[in-house]
Amino acid sequence: MVTTVGIVGLGLIGGSLARRVQGAGCRVLAWNHNPGPYRAARQAGITCLNSLEDLTRSRPQLIILCNSLVSMPEVLSRLGPLLDQHATTLADVGSVKATVRDQVRDAGMDACYIGAHPMAGNERSGFAASDAALFDGALWALTVDRESQYARFLQVARFITEQVGNRLIVLDDATHDRAAAMISHMPHAVSTAMINLLSTSEERNIAGALAAGSWRDMTRVALTDPKRTRAMIEEDRVNVEGFVRDMAERLTDFADALHDDDADRIEAFFTQGEPFRDYRRRMAQPSQPSQLDGQQNRPEQETQRLLLHRDQWRDELLRSARRGEQIIRFARDTECTVVTHAIA
Amino acid sequence: MVTTVGIVGLGLIGGSLARRVQGAGCRVLAWNHNPGPYRAARQAGITCLNSLEDLTRSRPQLIILCNSLVSMPEVLSRLGPLLDQHATTLADVGSVKATVRDQVRDAGMDACYIGAHPMAGNERSGFAASDAALFDGALWALTVDRESQYARFLQVARFITEQVGNRLIVLDDATHDRAAAMISHMPHAVSTAMINLLSTSEERNIAGALAAGSWRDMTRVALTDPKRTRAMIEEDRVNVEGFVRDMAERLTDFADALHDDDADRIEAFFTQGEPFRDYRRRMAQPSQPSQLDGQQNRPEQETQRLLLHRDQWRDELLRSARRGEQIIRFARDTECTVVTHAIA
Repeated sequence: MVTTVGIVGLGLIGGSLARRVQGAGCRVLAWNHNPGPYRAARQAGITCLNSLEDLTRSRPQLIILCNSLVSMPEVLSRLGPLLDQHATTLADVGSVKATVRDQVRDAGMDACYIGAHPMAGNERSGFAASDAALFDGALWALTVDRESQYARFLQVARFITEQVGNRLIVLDDATHDRAAAMISHMPHAVSTAMINLLSTSEERNIAGALAAGSWRDMTRVALTDPKRTRAMIEEDRVNVEGFVRDMAERLTDFADALHDDDADRIEAFFTQGEPFRDYRRRMAQPSQPSQLDGQQNRPEQETQRLLLHRDQWRDELLRSARRGEQIIRFARDTECTVVTHAIA
Repeated sequence: MVTTVGIVGLGLIGGSLARRVQGAGCRVLAWNHNPGPYRAARQAGITCLNSLEDLTRSRPQLIILCNSLVSMPEVLSRLGPLLDQHATTLADVGSVKATVRDQVRDAGMDACYIGAHPMAGNERSGFAASDAALFDGALWALTVDRESQYARFLQVARFITEQVGNRLIVLDDATHDRAAAMISHMPHAVSTAMINLLSTSEERNIAGALAAGSWRDMTRVALTDPKRTRAMIEEDRVNVEGFVRDMAERLTDFADALHDDDADRIEAFFTQGEPFRDYRRRMAQPSQPSQLDGQQNRPEQETQRLLLHRDQWRDELLRSARRGEQIIRFARDTECTVVTHAIA
C-alpha cells in the first residue's frame, strides 16, 4: 500500500491523479515547475512543495512524473542525484515509452523505474481542468523491460488497481509505442491530411457548408494544436511512418477496386473490419451486474485467474495483453484477476 | 407560400420534416410504402394517405420525396403518370443528386423538379426517431440544371427559408456530388480502412485496449452498417475514387517526409489545413446578437444582399455558394439575403 505518493507536474493528468488518490486515503506530495496551481491544489488537500529536493527528501514510496515530455530530460537530470532509489519507485504518465525509458536510464534511475501511460485525458489542460473523475474507468499501460524489478512493478500495479481504481495491461516499450501509433498518432496524421485536402480545394466553401457529422468526427483531432500533434508524431516517427504508409496502401487498393468495379475486393474492404465492429458492439452492451468494485464504464464478463512465474512474468503479462486480457486486481503477489475484451 | 406539402416516405428525414412544417401552419399529406408509422403520424397532425394516387389527386403545391435512394426509381415510375406537373413541384432529399435527376428525367418529370439535400440526420432511422428539431439550424443544398425553372426553384427555396426555417445554397448536381464525396463518402472509406488496419493487426487487442478519443472519433462512421456505406459510396463512385487517391497521395508524401526527416515538408503538412482550423474557430464563437429570426446554431455575421438576374441566376447562385454565402431569405423574387462563412 502506497501511503505517500509524489506527483511531479500538476497539469490536467497530474492534477486529476492527485485529486483521485488524495480522495482515496493516500497522502499526496506535489511539486510543479511553478506555484500557479498550488492554491487550488492545497484546497483539494494536496501538499504542495517548493522544490524537487523537498519531494525526494520526504521519501514517498512512489513518485509519478506527470510533467510534459518536453521537460522530461531536465526533470530527470535534476531528480537523478536526489532520489533515494531504495525508498522510492519512479513512474511516469508519458504517451511514448521507449524515449522516456532511455532518458530515465541516462539519468541513472532505470533500476527503480516502471513506465506507465494512463488512457485518460481530454482536450483541456492545466490544473484548473483537473478532475478525479477523469480516471473513471481508465486503463493504464505499464511498460517493463528486462531490467524491471517485479517488486517495483507490483507496487505500481497495485497502486493503480487498488488506489486509483483502474485496470491495466503490461507491455514492452516497443509494443506500446506501436499500438499508440496505430490508435492515436496515425489517426492524427490522417485527420490532418483530410483538412489539408479540404483547405486546398477550390470548392472548400461548398464542402465546408455541407460538412456534417462524419466530417466533424473525423477532423476533430486535426483541430487540436498542430505543434503538439507534430511533436507527438515526431516522438514516434518510425511507427507513424509505417502505419501512415499502410493506410495509403489500403486507400489506393480501395480506389483501384472502385475503378475496376471489382465487387469482390469492394466487398472485402467493407467486411475486413467486422471483428472491430463486433468488438465495439459487445463493448456497447449495458453493463452486466458485477461483483467487482470500482470497475466502471465497461461491461464486465467473467473474470479469470492469471498465475505468474517470477522468472517469466514479463512474457506472461505481454501474452496476456495480446489475448485481450486486462488486469483488474492482484489477488496475491503472483496471481491476478483479469477480464477479457478480445477482438476476434 | 406552400399551404399543402406532400411527403413521400415517413422515415427519420421525412417524418422530421413533416413534423416541422406541420407545426408551422402547413398542411402535410404523407404517404409511406407501408402504414406502420401512420398511427403516430396522425397523432402529430399529419394526414396519412392510402396511395400515391390519393396524394397526387390532392394537388399539393410541393411533393418532397423522402423515400430511400434504392426505392427512388420505382416511386418515380409510379409517380410519373399520376403527377399534375402544372399544380405540383417535385423535390427530394437524396444524398446524391446526379443519379436522382437522371431517374426523374427518365420518369418524365424533370421540368417540375428541383433537387434538394438537407444537411440533417443522425444515426437513427424510422418515424419513431423523427423530431422537428432535427432540422434546427440545418443547411440545404438545392441543385438545379439548365432545364430548371426559376419559379419552381423560388417556390422550393422560400419553402425552406420561410416554412422550414433553414438556410440554403444552390449547386449543380456535379458540384454537389463532388462536395458530398469529399466531406462524407471519402471519410467513410478512410474510417473503414482504419478499422481494417486494426482488425488485421496481430496487436489488435492491445491497440483496442489503448484506443481512446481520437480513435473513437475517427472510426465512429465505420461502425455504421457497411452495406449502407458501400451503397452510398458506389452511388458516387468516381468522385470517391478521386478523393481516396488524393488522400493516399497526401499520406504517402507525409510518410516520405517523416522518413527523410524533412522539417519543411513536415511543417507544411501541419500548417496547410490552417484555413479550416481558422474557419472552425470562427464558427465556434458564441452567437452574436442578431436581428434574424429562425437562424440558429451558428454565429451570424452581417448579412448582404444578393441580386439575381433571371437569365443568369444559376451561375450567380453557384458563384455565391463558392464564395461561402448561405441564403437565409428571399426579400423579393430576385433579391436574397445571405451570410458568408468562408474558408479563407
